[in-house]
Amino acid sequence: MNTITTDASASRECIDVNGRHYRRPQRTTVVICFDGCDPAYIEAATQTGVTPALDAMRRNGHFALADAAMPTFTNPNNVSIVCGAPPSVHGVAGNFYLDRATGETVMMLDAALMRAPTILAGLADIGSPVAVVTAKDKLRKALAFGLDGIAFSAECAKGTTDDEHGIDDAASFVGLPKPDQYSPELSLFVLDAGIRLIEAGRAEVLYLSLSDYVQHKHAPEAPEALAFMAAVDARVARLLELGAVVGITADHGMTDMARPDGAPRVTYLGDVLDAAFGEGATRVICPITDPFVRHHGALGGFVRVHLLKDGLSRQAVHDLLAAQPGVALALTGEEAAARFEMPEDREADFVVVGAEGFALGARAVDHDITQLAGERLRSHGSLSEQRVPFLLSHPLLEAEAGHRLRNFDIFDFVLNRVG
Amino acid sequence: MNTITTDASASRECIDVNGRHYRRPQRTTVVICFDGCDPAYIEAATQTGVTPALDAMRRNGHFALADAAMPTFTNPNNVSIVCGAPPSVHGVAGNFYLDRATGETVMMLDAALMRAPTILAGLADIGSPVAVVTAKDKLRKALAFGLDGIAFSAECAKGTTDDEHGIDDAASFVGLPKPDQYSPELSLFVLDAGIRLIEAGRAEVLYLSLSDYVQHKHAPEAPEALAFMAAVDARVARLLELGAVVGITADHGMTDMARPDGAPRVTYLGDVLDAAFGEGATRVICPITDPFVRHHGALGGFVRVHLLKDGLSRQAVHDLLAAQPGVALALTGEEAAARFEMPEDREADFVVVGAEGFALGARAVDHDITQLAGERLRSHGSLSEQRVPFLLSHPLLEAEAGHRLRNFDIFDFVLNRVG
Repeated sequence: MNTITTDASASRECIDVNGRHYRRPQRTTVVICFDGCDPAYIEAATQTGVTPALDAMRRNGHFALADAAMPTFTNPNNVSIVCGAPPSVHGVAGNFYLDRATGETVMMLDAALMRAPTILAGLADIGSPVAVVTAKDKLRKALAFGLDGIAFSAECAKGTTDDEHGIDDAASFVGLPKPDQYSPELSLFVLDAGIRLIEAGRAEVLYLSLSDYVQHKHAPEAPEALAFMAAVDARVARLLELGAVVGITADHGMTDMARPDGAPRVTYLGDVLDAAFGEGATRVICPITDPFVRHHGALGGFVRVHLLKDGLSRQAVHDLLAAQPGVALALTGEEAAARFEMPEDREADFVVVGAEGFALGARAVDHDITQLAGERLRSHGSLSEQRVPFLLSHPLLEAEAGHRLRNFDIFDFVLNRVG
Repeated sequence: MNTITTDASASRECIDVNGRHYRRPQRTTVVICFDGCDPAYIEAATQTGVTPALDAMRRNGHFALADAAMPTFTNPNNVSIVCGAPPSVHGVAGNFYLDRATGETVMMLDAALMRAPTILAGLADIGSPVAVVTAKDKLRKALAFGLDGIAFSAECAKGTTDDEHGIDDAASFVGLPKPDQYSPELSLFVLDAGIRLIEAGRAEVLYLSLSDYVQHKHAPEAPEALAFMAAVDARVARLLELGAVVGITADHGMTDMARPDGAPRVTYLGDVLDAAFGEGATRVICPITDPFVRHHGALGGFVRVHLLKDGLSRQAVHDLLAAQPGVALALTGEEAAARFEMPEDREADFVVVGAEGFALGARAVDHDITQLAGERLRSHGSLSEQRVPFLLSHPLLEAEAGHRLRNFDIFDFVLNRVG
């Protein structure tokens, strides 16, 4: 009977965040939130042969489809991914909301709404060097919630400070020209920054969050989309070459919401409600609204409806909403919160989910569709954009248990479940 | 919409040990391995009203029956509890074994057989002050495997060193007279030492492992047993008073293995095998054997059989073993390892499990039953002693999922599952 050496991996430091546990990584670990990367973009790129690194991940690692959090917007899903939990836990269910206490609409620009800690902050607390790089700066503050590490955006990389961002002048560190905020280069800068951070030994856990500028503008088969996929793929290849465990998922998919003639297929629920109940009786909030409306004119497949006037018949409002073309579901806030794991205490009176290929708007006057510059409206927000890719560089240690896979499971997989 | 303060408990440091995770405790946490505490001792004490603190734990916390690891001996179960895993994972399946490489029998006196890390060592690694106090010194070395903390035994508390035991002269620190190793006081010293360590702020996680001296000698209703239960209870009361989360389980139960006339009910398998196959053809190993044989004469309900001579018919040996009175199960080593989660690479040719109320021995000459000093044989080792108490001072956060509860789940419960 011989003594067998203890398996060192049998004991590992970990963190318990929002009821799930995550092992401290022993290899560089990168999660990419590939903004707007509908599975169709991966398929088109693979068919065309422009993404050899992604193909290698599928072949040597693991590929599946996962469900994004609802609504299928950027902020709720990025926050879900870094918290490993749905919006009901962390509190962020939109980019833009009506503060019912003040009656003001508010753009989410920081972490004020977050009520759950992040996996990233937890890993940093036990000594893992963590870095977050986002395309847009508004997301940076939320994702860096509680984080003692590096966090900056491609948008505002210039002049960052060690004090606030964990790194002085990230732009100089990355050494690339500042990308235009409406460009594919914004996302590529994020990936290049991640690569630089690893090469310089500055980070072992990285969360890289891209922009969906390209996907809003171009269908999966479009040359511009394929070129973007190839450019992303080259960065992924470098991450793999550096020995990183890489996990890629998306915040939401993307759907064409235009008619055959190219005009956006929109139901303006604000106008419908105003006609029936009078101006000012209700307020339609489009939570896709963000400071970068040029992508989509603030039009997506999910809106919230607040009743502002006393004495309105909730049933009448509900029935009117449910009867509109392009409406897949009209739910009370309570129903929607329960069904989609959203924070009930922050829900509107009604939640309306669009049918596939339809956008829902407030009043026509609220949306400047000239910003689409004649391009077809491509957007997201509804259940139709919930399926997203879930791609891992390394094979699973154990077969999946058959539960519903979520995009916000990705840190669990890269930290706990790959070999 | 108001910002709600983040729940600090939503992010906690933890460790991942042998595939399970354990949160770093925020309160003093004590696990007591109540050696030989068959559930009948708890029941008898409760009926008699001598254990108010244990009764309060049942009422305010949680009480269940759990299954010990097989074989139901002290070392395999203590090691299972501190590893949170069965012997197949950690490698310790007895107190005493035949080293097949050398042909020598070996008493397990240290951690040489252990091939898995402990929860205690893991917690110490992330900064929790950990203390282990055992009744007997042989167990101390195994339980302190890899531990950067305090570990000493009641047996050898005098003259401990900070270097080896994490504390200088534990006997002086505890301030109690050295107990006799064959006495109830040995266990009480362990509990008193734990209390002193907490009072002095020296430990936040404690594992206190008692001796089954009393249970081997006395039935649950005996005045000596009740007096011992009352004395243990007084120490538990103090632990609760100090605000500790307390979990109590046992390494095994205890069964009367004597005939009505008081003689031990033993089947000496060594003699049976020698008569059939010749002396030296086989070797029966009693893994209960330890340096403290006075309790039980090395007689228990589980033995291993090694075939030493070439050309023996395995089928003939098996059939002979299976046919003996007092034999509940005769299994091949492979079968036994799979069935009882024991390390297959360390198993004997055969494993024999006793029927309820029967002891299994090697040869009569190997067992000095005069050591029982005329008392009824009470012992353990078989499936009949697998049911043990599982008592928690605090209520469960969530109802149990209905899985098979094991004594080695207790750290999971005290660290992760009570409120």
